[in-house]
Amino acid sequence: MPSDGCVFCAIAEGLAPAQRVHEDEHTLAFMDLFPVAEGHTLIATRGHYENVFEAPEEALAAVGRASVPLARAVRDAFRPDGISVYQANGVAAGQTVFHYHMHLIPRHDGVPLRLHGREMASEGTLAGHAERIRKALAGARGGPREA
Amino acid sequence: MPSDGCVFCAIAEGLAPAQRVHEDEHTLAFMDLFPVAEGHTLIATRGHYENVFEAPEEALAAVGRASVPLARAVRDAFRPDGISVYQANGVAAGQTVFHYHMHLIPRHDGVPLRLHGREMASEGTLAGHAERIRKALAGARGGPREA
Repeated sequence: MPSDGCVFCAIAEGLAPAQRVHEDEHTLAFMDLFPVAEGHTLIATRGHYENVFEAPEEALAAVGRASVPLARAVRDAFRPDGISVYQANGVAAGQTVFHYHMHLIPRHDGVPLRLHGREMASEGTLAGHAERIRKALAGARGGPREA
Repeated sequence: MPSDGCVFCAIAEGLAPAQRVHEDEHTLAFMDLFPVAEGHTLIATRGHYENVFEAPEEALAAVGRASVPLARAVRDAFRPDGISVYQANGVAAGQTVFHYHMHLIPRHDGVPLRLHGREMASEGTLAGHAERIRKALAGARGGPREA
């Protein structure tokens, strides 16, 4: 059930643009509009659940399952020194979009963790990053590219 | 396959002590020894996988599934303003134990996120916190308490 005015519901329904890299029954993954590093990717539930407390277990099982190939693809595409997985529940935890999503944040030695970028990335930049992740996903599967 | 010298493998095998709050086929959850807040809980894979890149999808699906009742129980037991979910892959991301684990970190308004505590908590303190989480889990299930 989509929630009125929720930007991630709009993306899930195809009513708002996003640079998508993965979709399945329960999840969709796309580039963060305000990346803190190249390759910053979000895995959102397809359904509208505000946070971990409201999400069905099977939706978060799907997020966990999807995180493996996606994290590998971000690693292969951007060669960071590490990846931080972060997911905020509540304003006190830094949540700004109230629809469950997990951040995959590429990390580089000596660069402190930030959770939100200061500048919106251009559509062209994010399209290029998404293409690199999709290619890495396709390469890992050994098959033709799927989006 | 346990990994020699890995403290989380030792916990999984029952060879090292931990204040456990949940176990299933693929995961176990226990109190962080160096909590950054009361109720700081870890969900580890039962098998030894260094990070998100090495873990099987089904193991991380189980972590995602377990995160729902555990996050609710930490919320119900400690009444934080929010919960941060964090999982580090690589030293650059702050990883210090190289066996996949997800942090559930209670957050309080105005208190910045820290990922590692400065002081080890006493066994008695952690035992009390674990008991509160187990009670909240049992209450949510509406059944007798299980550990």
